[in-house]
This record gives sequence, structure tokens and C-alpha cells, in this order.
Amino acid sequence: MRRIEAIDFFYLAMPEILDISDGSQDALLVRIVAGDQVGWGECEASPLVTIASLVCPMSHHVCKPVSASVLGERIERVEDILRIHNQVRVNSMDLLQTDHTLSGIDVALWDLLGKAHHVPVYNLLGYCQVYPKTPYASYLFGGTPQETLEKAQKASSEGFRAVKFGWGPFGRESVEADNDQVVAAREGLGKDGILLVDAGTIWGENVSAAEKRLKILEECEVTWLEEPFHTGALKAYNDLARISGKVKLAGGEGAHNEYIAQQMIDYAGIEYIQIDTGRIGGITASKRVTDYAVKKEVNFVNHTFTSHLALSASLQAYAGLRDHVLCEYPGQLQQLADDLTFEHFEMDANGQIQLPEKPGLGFSPNIAALRKYLVEARIEVNGKTLYQTPVF
Amino acid sequence: MRRIEAIDFFYLAMPEILDISDGSQDALLVRIVAGDQVGWGECEASPLVTIASLVCPMSHHVCKPVSASVLGERIERVEDILRIHNQVRVNSMDLLQTDHTLSGIDVALWDLLGKAHHVPVYNLLGYCQVYPKTPYASYLFGGTPQETLEKAQKASSEGFRAVKFGWGPFGRESVEADNDQVVAAREGLGKDGILLVDAGTIWGENVSAAEKRLKILEECEVTWLEEPFHTGALKAYNDLARISGKVKLAGGEGAHNEYIAQQMIDYAGIEYIQIDTGRIGGITASKRVTDYAVKKEVNFVNHTFTSHLALSASLQAYAGLRDHVLCEYPGQLQQLADDLTFEHFEMDANGQIQLPEKPGLGFSPNIAALRKYLVEARIEVNGKTLYQTPVF
Repeated sequence: MRRIEAIDFFYLAMPEILDISDGSQDALLVRIVAGDQVGWGECEASPLVTIASLVCPMSHHVCKPVSASVLGERIERVEDILRIHNQVRVNSMDLLQTDHTLSGIDVALWDLLGKAHHVPVYNLLGYCQVYPKTPYASYLFGGTPQETLEKAQKASSEGFRAVKFGWGPFGRESVEADNDQVVAAREGLGKDGILLVDAGTIWGENVSAAEKRLKILEECEVTWLEEPFHTGALKAYNDLARISGKVKLAGGEGAHNEYIAQQMIDYAGIEYIQIDTGRIGGITASKRVTDYAVKKEVNFVNHTFTSHLALSASLQAYAGLRDHVLCEYPGQLQQLADDLTFEHFEMDANGQIQLPEKPGLGFSPNIAALRKYLVEARIEVNGKTLYQTPVF
Repeated sequence: MRRIEAIDFFYLAMPEILDISDGSQDALLVRIVAGDQVGWGECEASPLVTIASLVCPMSHHVCKPVSASVLGERIERVEDILRIHNQVRVNSMDLLQTDHTLSGIDVALWDLLGKAHHVPVYNLLGYCQVYPKTPYASYLFGGTPQETLEKAQKASSEGFRAVKFGWGPFGRESVEADNDQVVAAREGLGKDGILLVDAGTIWGENVSAAEKRLKILEECEVTWLEEPFHTGALKAYNDLARISGKVKLAGGEGAHNEYIAQQMIDYAGIEYIQIDTGRIGGITASKRVTDYAVKKEVNFVNHTFTSHLALSASLQAYAGLRDHVLCEYPGQLQQLADDLTFEHFEMDANGQIQLPEKPGLGFSPNIAALRKYLVEARIEVNGKTLYQTPVF
């Protein structure tokens, strides 16, 4: 019987972390070993905190370290992943970081099981066929409209049929300044491209601030306005959705379990639910949201701003859905994220990408290239070492 | 001008942590120093992970360590707390543990500001008068109905007018076994006492499992059934609320921001919203939920299972509301939680407790008694010590 023998967390970082909205500056790579199989995954954000949640001392019955529910467990079939996933949620209920930690572990377990069964993960999820996705290049707004225009032109010239701009100065200055940015993005992209705008929760729950940007978004034929508000501000979302006309709302990257995503679908009036596999609880939780989105006729889209390993993980949950076509494709990765895998997604002549027909996730870490990013970390409690950077 | 000079996290633990549903086995005590003032607070659950989130290296623009938004900040007025609170949420958005960490810091800031202004925290929150609360003794169900009966008798003989039983075997075995437990609780408490039952999310989102227990709960005049489901399972809550008759639903301790609590109020059909100040984001977030609960005619109740410092913090948000009378009062604290403060709440002859008219929270740590519980922890990243246990 195959059992989980080791969970190793590798904290990787660029030599210098800048105070910019770029989530590819560090990474937490997860390796799970069970018998003759190895699986790889990635957790979203703050590697040190996630490491602490893997190894922390127990606080009480439902506040155990995540490792306690994973190490030694049987991993032969899909049901084993579901059992481990549920155990982690129950046994680490009172630990907020749990869902990040579980995410990378869950992804690594699906990768491992796919390899053990010699099939892609999407087959294990019940999809017989995989459909191409249309990636949108995900960019930060430029410091000036001209910069934004140039980024859009670049994306278009690289073959992207869709571009998303977000964060940066958007929403922080005047309505006019935002208008100029959106107009520049449309101009750079050309009239046929799919243009998306991400407000990065800048308006909290202030509906009227968001409303003031609707006119220009509609004029520039923006397909969706993403995250005008905090993930939990369902009423603000819903109020805006009633008046947003052709501009649809998108959100959900902040969801760290499937319930939060379902609530956005049920009560926020969004038409695109965006799920980060590295945060929501891995592929298991992503697939539950996919199924719910299909039932409720909402579009599923991945949220990914890190490596192509994370991108592969995030596409699995909706790989077999022909009508859910858009996918986020990080356009400006740091070298670390690029070096993270041997394989990379390549766009075809139609500006589309497709998951490979390879066992597991089909992407594997380039360990030799990653050594130089490895961060040495050490956690000691009462003289006992609970964590030290493992050997690759 | 008074600025925050130090944030110290003290990890305290009983010599042995048992695998039981008792959250008072460890504690994270927060000390904030600003000028000549000191404030104290407490964070819920998993001290090591929360420490990591205070000191972790920045991952990107909105994934900074919590300390980055607090240290050096001005702290003179209530508006300063609100500003710091918001900064933490924005700057550490992508770090799930943030709300736990913020909770203890927020509580300590209110304590500090109350002391600086020589007024209780509830005055700073706008309450001129404070009303007594009726504490319910919060117990785990006994291993047998007889044990439960004896616990209820003990609570009653100690003057408690209300008792809550939860966790333990409840919901894990047959309906008959659960019936016997509830009958025993009612018998031990006597017919006039307020009896509450806590299912500890045992049924996930399985409404029919919960429904099978409604009959006995109604027969035994149970005032509320708490947490039948996961915090996010709003639809399951709402479906059960429609058929639960005289037994009202309670929930919300899992809420780690005010939005989650608002959603339970809006969509779950609960009549009691239970807020843990050590998890939801401190007194600032608790007060927002209180205001919303009043508006929506839902009862506010604290959730507290640790020290009397935490209990004082948790009562502040609804101290001035005459009609919201119940409060959770941990009935079986570990010695650590008892030793944590010099002062303790005492029930009066009416079985009620009241916040003291003292500056800040009115409760202060018994440092000499706490030294023996101090856990030595150390976190190093790339050879640099990010955390080591501070000196009391």
C-alpha cells in the first residue's frame, strides 16, 4: 500500500522582493513523496507562514498542524485525496492559514496520483476530453496611459487575443485618470481584442466610486470589471451588478474555500468566478466550484499569477468544459517563476493554450535552476527544530 | 506624539497539550508599547503561525508582514486604530492568518488607548452605560449522559442560569445517544435554566442529520442549536432555520472578518451571531458586527474559550446593549488561562457579570504567574533572526 512518507516545503524567492503587486517574486513549492511516486504543488503567498502552519505545535483538537492530517496517509485512489482534504479542514479548522497550506498539498497529491495511474489529472477529475483555453495576458496598469498602451500593443503583437490590466494607479486617482488608462488599453489592444479590467478591491464596498467608472468601461467594451470590492462585500457587488449593463462583474480570487465562492455566485451577481487553486484548497476545492458554477450558469476562470506549474494546476478543474474559454496567463513573470518548471505553455496560432496529455500535471520543477532561489529558514520551538529547509 | 514602538508576542502553553476541544491550552498574548502606555491583547489559536505572520518577509505589495502596518504608527485617537486596522487588512490581504494576528493587536490598541484616556474601552466605542450580561457556562458534553448531567448540576449549583454543552460525542453517534445527552443536560440544569447546544459544525452541510435532532432539542426547550454546519454553509443553515421551530440557530465563531458575519446574518437565518474577538479582527470588527446585528434584529453574543482578558475584550462591543444579554463564559479553563490575569469576572447573586469601570479592558496579565508557561520560539530566515521569544 502506498503511504505518504514526506511533505517538503521549499521556500523560493527572488534576491530582492519589491513592494509591487507582483505575486511571482517568491513561491512555496511542495513536494510529496509516497512510495515510488513524487507529486509537486504550489501554495499561494507568504511561504514562511504556510511553513509554520505545516509544522506548528497542536493548540487543541481542531487546531493541529496540517502535516498531522497528511503524513502516513494512504494515497492510492481519488477517494484518498478527498479524505485527506477533509481531514485537514476538520483537524486544522481553527488555523486560518490552513487553506493556503492545504492548497499546495492537494495539488501535489493530484499530481502524484495522476503519475501513479499514468493519466493527466483532468482524467481523474472525470474529464475524458480537454478543450483549449484562450489566455488573457495579465498585466499591471502602466504608470502612465502611454505605458499601458505599449503593454497592450506588446500583448497583441505576441498573439494574445485578450488582455487584462489591473492594480497600479487604477482607482487611486481621478475618474479622468482612470478613463485615460482604459482608453489607452483599448487603443493598444485594438478593437477586436477582449479587454478586462481588474480594480484589485480598491473601492472596498463603495458602490458609487465604482459606478463612476462604468461609463468608460462600457464605451471601451470591457468584458469584465474584476474585484471592484472586497471578496466579502456581496451586497456592494450585487448593487453594482444591477447597473453595470454590458460590463459584467468578476471576482473570487480571495475565496479560500468553496463556500465563499458559492456565496459570490449566489449573492454577488457576478458572471465570472475566478478561482486561485493555490488558495482555495487546491484542485479538489476548485473542482467543486467549477461544478457549482456550471449549475448556476456562471463562467469559471482561473486566477494565477505565478508559475506554469500553478497554471497547469489551475486549469485542471475546468479543462473539460468547452464553453468556459478564458484563462488567466501571467504575462510578466519574474525569472523565478519562469525557472520553476522545465515545461511551459505555448500559445498556438489561434492564440490558445491547452493542457498536455501527460501524467499528473504534466509540468515538473527544474530543480537545478531553482537552487539559487532557495531561502534558508529555520523554526525552533522549545529547543526542537520543527522546520529547516529540506534538501531538493 | 505617541507612536507604536514595540509589538511583542508571547507564546504561552500548558506543559502538555491534549488532543481535546479545549482552546485554553495555549495562548498568544500581545503587548503593545507606545510612549508611556502599554496595551494587552490575545489572538485566537496557533501562536506559532500567528507569530510567523507578524514577522514574515514581504511576498509582494499586499502580502506584507502584519508588523509593517503597525510599528511606528501614531496612536492618539480612535481614528488611529481604525486607520491601522484598515492598513493591516489592505497590506496583508494575501496572507490568510492576518485576521488572527490583527485581532490581538487591535484589542491591545483599544486597551492602550482606553488607558491613555483613562476610560473603559466601551466608552471609546460610544457606550455611556454598561449593562450586566448573563453568562452561560460553556462545557464539553460528558463522555456519558451521566457525566453531562453532573456537569449541568455543578454549573447550576455554582449559580449559572444558563449552560451550553457542545462537541465531545454529540453528533458523532446515533440520534438516540444524542437524545440521551440532551435529556441529561436538561435534567442536570433543572427546568428553569437556559440550555444551549453546540454541534461544532459536525454535520458539515447535511441538513437532514441536523433535522433528526430537532425533536429532542425542542422537547428539552433548548434555546439555540449552535454551529450545526460549516460557517460558510449558508444555505444549509437557512434550510434548517425554516424548520427548526422554537429552537433558534446560532453561529459565527468561524467568521474572521465582519463580512462573513454579515452574510450569516443576511442569508443563514440565524438569530444569534457569535463573534470571537480574537479571530474576527479584534474589537473594531466585533463592533461593526454588533451594529449590523442591531440593525437586523439579530442577537449578538461573544464567543470566548480562553482567558478573562479575552472575555473582557469580547464583551466590549456589546457592553452598552441592554437587550443582548447572554454571554459565553468558559467554564473549565486550564490553569494557564486562569493565571493569565490578576482580575477575574465574578458572578453576582443574580448570576450576572459586568465589565468593570476601569481604564482600557480593566484586566491585566499576571506576568509573574505566566513565566512558567512561556514557550521559547525562534524563527530564522537566511541567517537573520526574525523572531525570538521576547522578555516579559
